[in-house]
Amino acid sequence: MSVNDRPSGQPTKPPVSHNSPFLRACRREPVPHTPVWFMRQAGRSLPEYLKVREGIPMLESCTRPELVTEITLQPVRRHKVDAAVYYSDIVVPLKAIGLDLDIKPGVGPVVADPIRSRADLDRLRDLTPDDVGYVTEAIGMLTAELGETPLIGFAGAPFTLASYLIEGGPSRTYERTKAMMYGDPELWADLVDRLADITGAFLKVQVEAGASAVQLFDSWAGALAPADYERHVMPASAKVFDTIAPYGVPRIHFGVGTGELLKLMGDAGADVVGVDWRVSLDEAARRVGPGKALQGNLDPTVLYAPTEVVEEKTREVLEAAAGLEGHVFNLGHGVLPTMDPDALTRLTEYVHTRTAH
Amino acid sequence: MSVNDRPSGQPTKPPVSHNSPFLRACRREPVPHTPVWFMRQAGRSLPEYLKVREGIPMLESCTRPELVTEITLQPVRRHKVDAAVYYSDIVVPLKAIGLDLDIKPGVGPVVADPIRSRADLDRLRDLTPDDVGYVTEAIGMLTAELGETPLIGFAGAPFTLASYLIEGGPSRTYERTKAMMYGDPELWADLVDRLADITGAFLKVQVEAGASAVQLFDSWAGALAPADYERHVMPASAKVFDTIAPYGVPRIHFGVGTGELLKLMGDAGADVVGVDWRVSLDEAARRVGPGKALQGNLDPTVLYAPTEVVEEKTREVLEAAAGLEGHVFNLGHGVLPTMDPDALTRLTEYVHTRTAH
Repeated sequence: MSVNDRPSGQPTKPPVSHNSPFLRACRREPVPHTPVWFMRQAGRSLPEYLKVREGIPMLESCTRPELVTEITLQPVRRHKVDAAVYYSDIVVPLKAIGLDLDIKPGVGPVVADPIRSRADLDRLRDLTPDDVGYVTEAIGMLTAELGETPLIGFAGAPFTLASYLIEGGPSRTYERTKAMMYGDPELWADLVDRLADITGAFLKVQVEAGASAVQLFDSWAGALAPADYERHVMPASAKVFDTIAPYGVPRIHFGVGTGELLKLMGDAGADVVGVDWRVSLDEAARRVGPGKALQGNLDPTVLYAPTEVVEEKTREVLEAAAGLEGHVFNLGHGVLPTMDPDALTRLTEYVHTRTAH
Repeated sequence: MSVNDRPSGQPTKPPVSHNSPFLRACRREPVPHTPVWFMRQAGRSLPEYLKVREGIPMLESCTRPELVTEITLQPVRRHKVDAAVYYSDIVVPLKAIGLDLDIKPGVGPVVADPIRSRADLDRLRDLTPDDVGYVTEAIGMLTAELGETPLIGFAGAPFTLASYLIEGGPSRTYERTKAMMYGDPELWADLVDRLADITGAFLKVQVEAGASAVQLFDSWAGALAPADYERHVMPASAKVFDTIAPYGVPRIHFGVGTGELLKLMGDAGADVVGVDWRVSLDEAARRVGPGKALQGNLDPTVLYAPTEVVEEKTREVLEAAAGLEGHVFNLGHGVLPTMDPDALTRLTEYVHTRTAH
């Protein structure tokens, strides 16, 4: 199904952002300039974010529509990026269905009672729009404010969510996660299938509320060998993409260190494949094959270098992207909290100027 | 220079381990069975290790020759692996030249006063054999005990050492490290060049004492894009390999997540390229090119699965290795502290039996 198809009965009128450079690039149509956004553009790198978040725990901040709207808009105002990305966290839908988890500053998501047995699956009930009414409300406010600037919805992919649920928190080795995947593949398959339903439902809420693209973050899928990804993870991620296919919004798929998985991550149902900085975009295009746009891929740490180095490295990215069917400029991973926001503003302007025609 | 050449004036008599399956595989000669060793085989997975280390801080344990000998021998006795790997830590040579650093349990190496300016380079003086007399002593004892079983010396590579020295400890983003690399490439080049001298000297001590192979661990090089690796890191690692080339011992080069760097890591001067589990060995051989043996590459977390899964995954590794010029079986990264040592013993035996002819 192409990104222009819509589910029957859905309104066929395209969103006001339809002809934005970002959505055009995702659809591999000609663009006036290469569109730019940054993963984690809304967040700790911005002083105005730190100010409005003061005293409010992370997960609570995700449930306040006015705050979500403000935080989501901040980087659009400041950097003049070509897309907003909905301010949330990958564990928000899991919290919304009642799991006891929190985000510990400096650590990451921590799950009080990890999922490790078949009985634990019962705690993963379906997500309904009523569980995340604040999302619908925030996106309604956001699309009104954003006008022609598209809003990207997002969710964590089943593998990455499963890794937090099984390990109980962040991991460097994913040993319990892979122990289940290798040792009890039926339980594993049922777990990621259930997470696919939750993730799909969560993205559906965002798209129905007005998000005009989605990104599925499989942040840690790069820990897997291709054969394991294909067998144990790809079916669940494909199910997520299938769920939102009828809406015809571009679907972006990203994970870090996924050079060996790019083809599979595209084949899972993505219209746009996100690439980290380890694989140049021309090589990534060869791996992914035709019919997909690519997103990426400046090494985020380049932003700590002087402007002339940032510009040199950016030119290298743009040159590698010259032959692509569609290119969305981004970093190869998220914005880091210690980054100078002015460097991101300058980078956005540099890409716009350099690619304008 | 081939691995059979020796520096002029050196004794030409080969070590008693010369015809061991491990050294033969490294030299791409026929073997009676595929040799096996495990990165981090000596260490926290073994109860006998925990017992002898009790109450002794990590870095102190590395300076006691009897203890080093015992710990190095433990996995050889227990698992019947085909090589011992010298018990040490990548920061040992840095400690030996007087840097104020320690290994914090559960964290990793921590550097009291990180290296961040040109003036800081003065603290990186050359390493002499006298700085590490305990290494010479321990290896003398070890080779006597090991007989025909070869001993692998090892050291951390300049990039990985630099990352600890600059960040002050472990990092997930290497932002300060890369900031120096991109922002002050001359300072960076001088830093890794100095580290290459220290690392080369440290490996030389090990080889002169009797190590019959060496492994250079560039654990975190996989954080780099190939062009950055080639420009900013490869020359220093090549210098290390050049330093020990005259001794004719096989040189192994390994880092995790280095799928995009395999060719460059071989070209840096390795006889054997270590591969993590993300790239199958046949694909790795295509990337590395002819004239090198490969080492690897079972996903360590497979060891948490039932025996039949371990065997199935091991067969996949061996099948992918079938066409290689030389293959040393290993995990795709180090042994994890929570692993069942019996599973490693069974794995060693399985590879031996399966490949015997």
